[in-house]
Amino acid sequence: MTPNKLSEYIDVDRMQRRLDELSEIAKTSDGGVTRLAYTEAETEAYEYILTEISNEYDITEDTVGNVFATQQSDAAKSVLTGSHLDSVFNGGPLDGALGVVVSLEAVNAVYRADVDCAFPPTLAIFRGEESARFGHHTIGSRAALGMLDIQTLAATDQNGVPLWKAMQDIGFQPDNLSEPSIDFDSVAAFLETHIEQGRVLEEHGDDLGIVSSIRAPVRYRVTVGGNYDHSGATPMGLRQDALTAASEMVVAIEEIAEEAAADGDIVGTVGTITAVDGSINQVCGRVEFSLDLRSNDIDYRDDVESRLLETIDAIAASRGVTLETEGIARSDPVSLDDGIVAQLQSAAESIGAKHRVLPSGGGHDAMNFELNGIPTGMVFVPSIDGVSHNPDEETTPEAIEGAAAGLAHSIVALE
Amino acid sequence: MTPNKLSEYIDVDRMQRRLDELSEIAKTSDGGVTRLAYTEAETEAYEYILTEISNEYDITEDTVGNVFATQQSDAAKSVLTGSHLDSVFNGGPLDGALGVVVSLEAVNAVYRADVDCAFPPTLAIFRGEESARFGHHTIGSRAALGMLDIQTLAATDQNGVPLWKAMQDIGFQPDNLSEPSIDFDSVAAFLETHIEQGRVLEEHGDDLGIVSSIRAPVRYRVTVGGNYDHSGATPMGLRQDALTAASEMVVAIEEIAEEAAADGDIVGTVGTITAVDGSINQVCGRVEFSLDLRSNDIDYRDDVESRLLETIDAIAASRGVTLETEGIARSDPVSLDDGIVAQLQSAAESIGAKHRVLPSGGGHDAMNFELNGIPTGMVFVPSIDGVSHNPDEETTPEAIEGAAAGLAHSIVALE
Repeated sequence: MTPNKLSEYIDVDRMQRRLDELSEIAKTSDGGVTRLAYTEAETEAYEYILTEISNEYDITEDTVGNVFATQQSDAAKSVLTGSHLDSVFNGGPLDGALGVVVSLEAVNAVYRADVDCAFPPTLAIFRGEESARFGHHTIGSRAALGMLDIQTLAATDQNGVPLWKAMQDIGFQPDNLSEPSIDFDSVAAFLETHIEQGRVLEEHGDDLGIVSSIRAPVRYRVTVGGNYDHSGATPMGLRQDALTAASEMVVAIEEIAEEAAADGDIVGTVGTITAVDGSINQVCGRVEFSLDLRSNDIDYRDDVESRLLETIDAIAASRGVTLETEGIARSDPVSLDDGIVAQLQSAAESIGAKHRVLPSGGGHDAMNFELNGIPTGMVFVPSIDGVSHNPDEETTPEAIEGAAAGLAHSIVALE
Repeated sequence: MTPNKLSEYIDVDRMQRRLDELSEIAKTSDGGVTRLAYTEAETEAYEYILTEISNEYDITEDTVGNVFATQQSDAAKSVLTGSHLDSVFNGGPLDGALGVVVSLEAVNAVYRADVDCAFPPTLAIFRGEESARFGHHTIGSRAALGMLDIQTLAATDQNGVPLWKAMQDIGFQPDNLSEPSIDFDSVAAFLETHIEQGRVLEEHGDDLGIVSSIRAPVRYRVTVGGNYDHSGATPMGLRQDALTAASEMVVAIEEIAEEAAADGDIVGTVGTITAVDGSINQVCGRVEFSLDLRSNDIDYRDDVESRLLETIDAIAASRGVTLETEGIARSDPVSLDDGIVAQLQSAAESIGAKHRVLPSGGGHDAMNFELNGIPTGMVFVPSIDGVSHNPDEETTPEAIEGAAAGLAHSIVALE
């Protein structure tokens, strides 16, 4: 292995340019991006990356739009490395995109340096990692691994468009979903790089992070049903107001999650709320909101979940409104591969990067690989102020450079 | 005056047919209607009424789409009578439409019966009475009376379309807005008929109601600003969550309004809430909600309003989120014309209708006429269960017939 030779091929200006150019695709007026899963904007970001690498790589696209790019398509086993290009509504320029750009840089360095490696790398870019559009996460990687279910395919976006239709509308054919598009035997490992989306690395002055486990979400869609009534003509005492009931539930969820966070690992979030057919002059009769609950401790999470559901049920009963809680996702925390973690640590040491092993708060495509028995690791790049899912998402050139070098060294070190 | 002759021309089956046919225009899957202000659906309802009356009436349309129909366009003074055809989202079949259909029936009876009357009637149908689309009420009647301001014209709908643009898009030209389209000197009185939208008449077994005053709204658009953050990676203690802050405000508004309703006349409603760019996997950084506050007692309303604004301001301060409260409407309660009220009472007596004088909880086009010094009255038709702004809005054939007869007799009795 020739570490110094690899680092010569890492070009931080090129990565920065690619990140800047990607951030222009579906840019919002706030300086963020809205590149939702299975939209033309997401496809445009794919096309941008493919144009950057076109002549040198063998490109494969699977039936749901994931892209794989390698220079040794005849290798028996490959290391997959990459991330995603979609974003939340008005998301930041680094979530997903940073991982793709850093992975491409590392893959490129490995091929350019022409070093020996047991498993030649393949850049992997997955569709629809974010749940912003359909309420379901890591759609592309789950499809690639044969994990996508009918419930997810039938889920609808904010305009009532189901996922399967959105896939078809931009030219994909989600058939044979129980059939993975990835040949498991050909994958030696999956390495994902991602912005941290937290403050841990920055607080400790680390150059990069190595993920030990991923805190995956339990999610509900909650619907509160009351009566639509005239806002001027209906006395306060005669209302079944779905919006005030839902608001009381949101406050209670926050209170329980805050209290529980003092005693264990938990976060609970209501990120969306919709007053269905609501208007300023009407008591609202139907409100929907989302609930996202995460912990690295399954038992504790289940305990907090029970308390939350009991509490909102009691609020509904005391107000005489109806309550439906529809579970739409239930993932358990995933521990990443110990061998890969150790190997990422030694690669970080070999390039002199100050590093730390830490859990991930957010879910990532990586967890699906580990769940399928593929040795999986993740490299975290420090976030400035921990800002994420926000146009102000930021990191430093040094952090990007360190991540690409660390990743390249890890790829060649895998045996 | 020949009351019995007038009643002969009131045809309840025709009114019921027209209501049924109107309810098919922009019908929702719940059996309600979504005929928002200045949409093609509203125009379609206008066209339906015009087709029903085409040959017999002189029709005038003003520059913002209000329609006036009379058989004596050369009369020096006319009684205007009518209501509106727009609705809230998924509203009921009677709000607005009932008043138009009953008014048309009464106007028709007066002309068919060929009775003497000092002021020949004109059917008047106003655009955009509901604030569901733009957050501003009685747009058409305010324009007709020269009361429409730039703030209202610039108000935007749920898709960011401003009112002036919506008007232009369906062919109207909102110019010279300080210039009324109605010649005040030619209007002897305005009589509006409307579903009660409350339970008072039904509880007392009344056939119809006569409105004494109208409880008009004070309205705000409230914006709460926090930080967008990752729902999995951001610890509970590090959040500035705009959605939980807004929810606490909604609960506090309800609590204050409920307590205040025990001591005086007040209703307070948050009918809409929007988590801007919200998604299931994100702490929401911006939430908007509406506030609608009404009373027949100006001082009491102002007192409750101050308490509400102080309370939500304190909630914002304690949570470290920003708060903007934009006043978007401020109407005072309006007492209708005593002479007209007395005259409507005597018309009700003349046809043997059990009646009651009562205040209106909802705002109506009628208040704008009274505010301009035009003698104004309102007839209320009983609501079954007080249901309104709801697909289940309902009344009885007897109630509709009684209202049309009462209105026709009132028109000919005006002197």
